[in-house]
Amino acid sequence: MIKVIAKGYIKLGEVDKFKEIASVLVKESRKEEENISYGLYQDANNEQILTFIEEWKDQSALDKHMKTSHFVDSMAKLSKFQEKDMDINIYNSCI
Amino acid sequence: MIKVIAKGYIKLGEVDKFKEIASVLVKESRKEEENISYGLYQDANNEQILTFIEEWKDQSALDKHMKTSHFVDSMAKLSKFQEKDMDINIYNSCI
Repeated sequence: MIKVIAKGYIKLGEVDKFKEIASVLVKESRKEEENISYGLYQDANNEQILTFIEEWKDQSALDKHMKTSHFVDSMAKLSKFQEKDMDINIYNSCI
Repeated sequence: MIKVIAKGYIKLGEVDKFKEIASVLVKESRKEEENISYGLYQDANNEQILTFIEEWKDQSALDKHMKTSHFVDSMAKLSKFQEKDMDINIYNSCI
């Protein structure tokens, strides 16, 4: 199992638009067979930080996800609402 | 439910020592009544990035955790092995 943390920095005034597009991505991604969990989270102290927290069966499952039309289309749309590129980390369980 | 992502940047050569202390913190934190999950994860592309991913019942549960001796003691020890302060975000579920 791998975890993905994809932290987005959203432009002021664009948070609701980001969430609207992200909700489609979340719902479609959860339908993928090798997805374990997929959610969008908002920083409790900074509403402009919105982060996808995801769990996938393995790297191959993540690779497949990144080629789906819902991922490619959503990421293109979401990029317009972000101040800069997302911080993305892929993690293996350690303890 | 809230999620905590605490991302640590570990000094070269100190990764094993960080993991050793962190394992005590993880095991003790999982015993707390209002903890939902608590794990340490290593970045798949950079072994010097080690991140705690945690779930707590609510902010009050997290506040209690941060006053426990296992948290206070471990964080003091872990700070020696880090290049800089952790990036810490507290999140509410959004989608």
